[in-house]
Amino acid sequence: MRASILKQHHVLIASVQGSMSDADLAALRDELVSGVQRHRATGVIVDVAMLDVLDSFAARTLRGITQMVKLLGAECVVVGIQPDVAFSMVQLGLTLEGAATALDLEDGLALLKSRNRGNALDGD
Amino acid sequence: MRASILKQHHVLIASVQGSMSDADLAALRDELVSGVQRHRATGVIVDVAMLDVLDSFAARTLRGITQMVKLLGAECVVVGIQPDVAFSMVQLGLTLEGAATALDLEDGLALLKSRNRGNALDGD
Repeated sequence: MRASILKQHHVLIASVQGSMSDADLAALRDELVSGVQRHRATGVIVDVAMLDVLDSFAARTLRGITQMVKLLGAECVVVGIQPDVAFSMVQLGLTLEGAATALDLEDGLALLKSRNRGNALDGD
Repeated sequence: MRASILKQHHVLIASVQGSMSDADLAALRDELVSGVQRHRATGVIVDVAMLDVLDSFAARTLRGITQMVKLLGAECVVVGIQPDVAFSMVQLGLTLEGAATALDLEDGLALLKSRNRGNALDGD
Protein backbone atom coordinates (compact mmCIF):
# COMPACT_ATOMS: atom_id res chain seq x y z
CA MET A 1 0.00 0.00 0.00
CA ARG A 2 1.29 3.44 -0.94
CA ALA A 3 1.17 6.32 1.48
CA SER A 4 -0.79 9.39 0.49
CA ILE A 5 1.12 12.65 0.10
CA LEU A 6 -0.83 15.88 0.40
CA LYS A 7 0.45 19.34 -0.37
CA GLN A 8 -0.62 22.21 1.85
CA HIS A 9 0.96 25.53 0.84
CA HIS A 10 4.69 24.85 1.10
CA VAL A 11 4.36 21.72 3.22
CA LEU A 12 4.17 18.11 2.06
CA ILE A 13 2.20 15.86 4.41
CA ALA A 14 2.73 12.11 4.17
CA SER A 15 0.50 9.70 6.06
CA VAL A 16 2.15 6.38 6.73
CA GLN A 17 -0.34 3.49 6.73
CA GLY A 18 -0.19 0.69 9.26
CA SER A 19 0.47 -1.95 6.64
CA MET A 20 3.45 -0.50 4.80
CA SER A 21 6.23 -2.85 3.78
CA ASP A 22 9.89 -1.87 3.67
CA ALA A 23 9.60 -1.34 -0.11
CA ASP A 24 6.61 0.96 0.41
CA LEU A 25 8.58 2.99 2.95
CA ALA A 26 11.50 3.31 0.55
CA ALA A 27 9.10 4.40 -2.22
CA LEU A 28 7.60 7.00 0.14
CA ARG A 29 11.08 8.32 0.89
CA ASP A 30 11.90 8.69 -2.82
CA GLU A 31 8.57 10.32 -3.56
CA LEU A 32 8.94 12.80 -0.68
CA VAL A 33 12.46 13.79 -1.60
CA SER A 34 11.61 14.36 -5.26
CA GLY A 35 8.38 16.08 -4.16
CA VAL A 36 10.32 18.64 -2.11
CA GLN A 37 12.17 19.73 -5.23
CA ARG A 38 9.15 19.61 -7.54
CA HIS A 39 6.86 21.59 -5.25
CA ARG A 40 9.55 23.84 -3.75
CA ALA A 41 8.39 22.64 -0.32
CA THR A 42 9.91 24.24 2.77
CA GLY A 43 8.61 21.55 5.09
CA VAL A 44 7.73 17.87 5.20
CA ILE A 45 5.53 16.19 7.79
CA VAL A 46 5.52 12.41 8.13
CA ASP A 47 2.52 11.25 10.16
CA VAL A 48 3.11 7.83 11.70
CA ALA A 49 0.04 7.81 13.99
CA MET A 50 -1.29 4.68 12.24
CA LEU A 51 1.88 2.67 12.93
CA ASP A 52 1.69 0.15 15.78
CA VAL A 53 5.33 -0.78 15.40
CA LEU A 54 8.27 1.29 14.29
CA ASP A 55 11.08 -1.13 13.54
CA SER A 56 14.73 -0.43 12.79
CA PHE A 57 14.15 -0.15 9.02
CA ALA A 58 11.34 2.36 9.51
CA ALA A 59 13.42 4.36 12.00
CA ARG A 60 16.37 4.40 9.59
CA THR A 61 14.10 5.44 6.72
CA LEU A 62 12.67 8.30 8.78
CA ARG A 63 16.17 9.47 9.72
CA GLY A 64 17.12 9.23 6.03
CA ILE A 65 14.12 11.29 4.92
CA THR A 66 15.00 13.95 7.50
CA GLN A 67 18.59 14.16 6.34
CA MET A 68 17.75 14.18 2.61
CA VAL A 69 15.04 16.79 3.02
CA LYS A 70 17.47 18.90 5.06
CA LEU A 71 20.03 18.73 2.26
CA LEU A 72 17.39 20.16 -0.08
CA GLY A 73 16.89 23.06 2.33
CA ALA A 74 13.59 22.00 3.88
CA GLU A 75 12.62 20.79 7.36
CA CYS A 76 11.12 17.43 8.27
CA VAL A 77 8.93 16.75 11.30
CA VAL A 78 7.80 13.28 12.36
CA VAL A 79 4.42 13.44 14.08
CA GLY A 80 1.98 11.08 15.76
CA ILE A 81 4.31 8.58 17.43
CA GLN A 82 2.12 6.67 19.89
CA PRO A 83 3.25 6.27 23.54
CA ASP A 84 3.49 2.48 23.15
CA VAL A 85 5.59 2.87 20.02
CA ALA A 86 7.87 5.39 21.76
CA PHE A 87 8.28 2.95 24.64
CA SER A 88 9.29 0.07 22.36
CA MET A 89 11.63 2.27 20.36
CA VAL A 90 13.52 3.37 23.45
CA GLN A 91 13.67 -0.22 24.74
CA LEU A 92 15.11 -1.32 21.39
CA GLY A 93 17.56 1.59 21.35
CA LEU A 94 16.03 3.11 18.21
CA THR A 95 16.23 6.88 17.94
CA LEU A 96 15.16 9.47 15.41
CA GLU A 97 18.31 11.46 16.06
CA GLY A 98 18.23 14.70 14.12
CA ALA A 99 14.53 14.48 13.31
CA ALA A 100 12.17 17.00 14.85
CA THR A 101 9.11 15.42 16.43
CA ALA A 102 5.68 16.73 17.37
CA LEU A 103 2.59 15.25 18.99
CA ASP A 104 0.29 15.45 16.00
CA LEU A 105 -0.25 17.08 12.62
CA GLU A 106 -1.47 20.31 14.20
CA ASP A 107 1.61 20.71 16.39
CA GLY A 108 3.83 19.67 13.49
CA LEU A 109 2.44 22.41 11.26
CA ALA A 110 2.83 24.95 14.08
CA LEU A 111 6.45 23.87 14.55
CA LEU A 112 7.23 24.23 10.84
CA LYS A 113 5.49 27.59 10.74
CA SER A 114 7.52 28.94 13.66
CA ARG A 115 10.76 27.72 12.11
CA ASN A 116 9.91 29.07 8.68
CA ARG A 117 9.06 32.39 10.20
CA GLY A 118 12.60 32.39 11.51
CA ASN A 119 13.85 31.73 7.99
CA ALA A 120 11.28 34.07 6.40
CA LEU A 121 10.86 31.74 3.43
CA ASP A 122 7.12 31.27 3.31
CA GLY A 123 6.28 34.92 2.92
CA ASP A 124 3.58 35.26 5.54
CA MET B 1 4.21 4.76 46.76
CA ARG B 2 3.04 6.48 43.60
CA ALA B 3 4.45 9.80 42.51
CA SER B 4 2.09 12.71 42.10
CA ILE B 5 1.75 14.23 38.65
CA LEU B 6 0.51 17.80 38.42
CA LYS B 7 -0.48 19.62 35.27
CA GLN B 8 0.38 23.28 34.94
CA HIS B 9 -0.67 24.75 31.59
CA HIS B 10 1.18 22.59 29.06
CA VAL B 11 3.68 21.15 31.52
CA LEU B 12 3.42 17.92 33.51
CA ILE B 13 5.26 18.01 36.83
CA ALA B 14 6.12 14.72 38.50
CA SER B 15 7.48 14.64 42.03
CA VAL B 16 9.50 11.53 42.74
CA GLN B 17 9.17 10.38 46.37
CA GLY B 18 12.13 9.15 48.37
CA SER B 19 10.68 5.69 48.80
CA MET B 20 9.87 4.70 45.24
CA SER B 21 10.59 1.14 44.15
CA ASP B 22 11.69 0.19 40.65
CA ALA B 23 8.11 -0.80 39.81
CA ASP B 24 6.85 2.60 40.99
CA LEU B 25 9.41 4.33 38.79
CA ALA B 26 8.35 2.25 35.78
CA ALA B 27 4.69 3.09 36.51
CA LEU B 28 5.60 6.78 36.72
CA ARG B 29 7.34 6.52 33.35
CA ASP B 30 4.29 4.93 31.70
CA GLU B 31 1.93 7.45 33.26
CA LEU B 32 4.06 10.41 32.16
CA VAL B 33 4.42 9.18 28.59
CA SER B 34 0.70 8.52 28.16
CA GLY B 35 -0.04 11.80 29.99
CA VAL B 36 1.97 13.79 27.43
CA GLN B 37 -0.33 12.55 24.69
CA ARG B 38 -3.54 12.88 26.73
CA HIS B 39 -2.86 16.44 27.92
CA ARG B 40 -0.98 17.59 24.80
CA ALA B 41 1.88 18.58 27.09
CA THR B 42 4.84 20.37 25.57
CA GLY B 43 7.05 19.80 28.60
CA VAL B 44 7.65 17.36 31.42
CA ILE B 45 9.49 18.12 34.65
CA VAL B 46 10.67 15.29 36.90
CA ASP B 47 11.52 16.61 40.35
CA VAL B 48 13.93 14.27 42.16
CA ALA B 49 14.71 16.61 45.07
CA MET B 50 13.37 14.03 47.55
CA LEU B 51 15.69 11.29 46.32
CA ASP B 52 18.72 10.49 48.50
CA VAL B 53 20.02 7.92 46.06
CA LEU B 54 19.74 7.75 42.30
CA ASP B 55 20.73 4.23 41.31
CA SER B 56 21.34 2.79 37.85
CA PHE B 57 17.72 1.76 37.37
CA ALA B 58 16.47 5.23 38.28
CA ALA B 59 19.03 6.86 35.98
CA ARG B 60 18.05 4.54 33.11
CA THR B 61 14.36 5.25 33.73
CA LEU B 62 14.98 9.00 33.66
CA ARG B 63 16.92 8.66 30.40
CA GLY B 64 14.07 6.54 29.00
CA ILE B 65 11.45 9.11 30.00
CA THR B 66 13.47 11.83 28.29
CA GLN B 67 13.80 9.86 25.06
CA MET B 68 10.15 8.75 24.97
CA VAL B 69 8.84 12.22 25.73
CA LYS B 70 11.08 13.59 22.97
CA LEU B 71 9.61 11.12 20.46
CA LEU B 72 6.17 12.51 21.31
CA GLY B 73 7.44 16.01 20.58
CA ALA B 74 7.78 17.33 24.14
CA GLU B 75 10.78 18.27 26.28
CA CYS B 76 11.81 16.71 29.58
CA VAL B 77 13.81 18.42 32.32
CA VAL B 78 15.11 16.66 35.43
CA VAL B 79 15.26 19.05 38.37
CA GLY B 80 16.35 19.01 41.99
CA ILE B 81 19.31 16.63 41.91
CA GLN B 82 21.02 17.11 45.26
CA PRO B 83 24.79 17.77 45.38
CA ASP B 84 25.39 14.51 47.28
CA VAL B 85 23.37 12.59 44.72
CA ALA B 86 25.25 14.24 41.84
CA PHE B 87 28.51 13.30 43.56
CA SER B 88 27.53 9.63 43.90
CA MET B 89 26.21 9.48 40.35
CA VAL B 90 29.49 10.69 38.93
CA GLN B 91 31.45 8.29 41.16
CA LEU B 92 29.26 5.42 39.91
CA GLY B 93 29.57 6.54 36.30
CA LEU B 94 25.83 7.19 35.95
CA THR B 95 24.82 9.91 33.52
CA LEU B 96 21.54 11.44 32.38
CA GLU B 97 22.86 11.80 28.85
CA GLY B 98 20.35 13.59 26.66
CA ALA B 99 18.24 14.83 29.57
CA ALA B 100 18.13 18.53 30.31
CA THR B 101 18.67 19.38 33.97
CA ALA B 102 17.89 22.41 36.11
CA LEU B 103 18.53 23.36 39.72
CA ASP B 104 14.92 23.37 40.87
CA LEU B 105 11.33 23.48 39.69
CA GLU B 106 11.43 27.21 39.09
CA ASP B 107 14.49 27.01 36.85
CA GLY B 108 13.04 23.98 35.08
CA LEU B 109 9.85 25.85 34.21
CA ALA B 110 11.90 28.82 32.99
CA LEU B 111 14.00 26.50 30.81
CA LEU B 112 10.92 24.89 29.24
CA LYS B 113 9.36 28.28 28.69
CA SER B 114 12.40 29.62 26.87
CA ARG B 115 12.57 26.54 24.65
CA ASN B 116 8.88 26.58 23.86
CA ARG B 117 9.06 30.21 22.95
CA GLY B 118 11.61 29.20 20.35
CA ASN B 119 9.13 26.73 18.92
CA ALA B 120 6.14 29.05 19.49
CA LEU B 121 3.96 26.10 20.40
CA ASP B 122 2.52 27.26 23.70
CA GLY B 123 0.86 30.31 22.27
CA ASP B 124 1.94 32.87 24.81
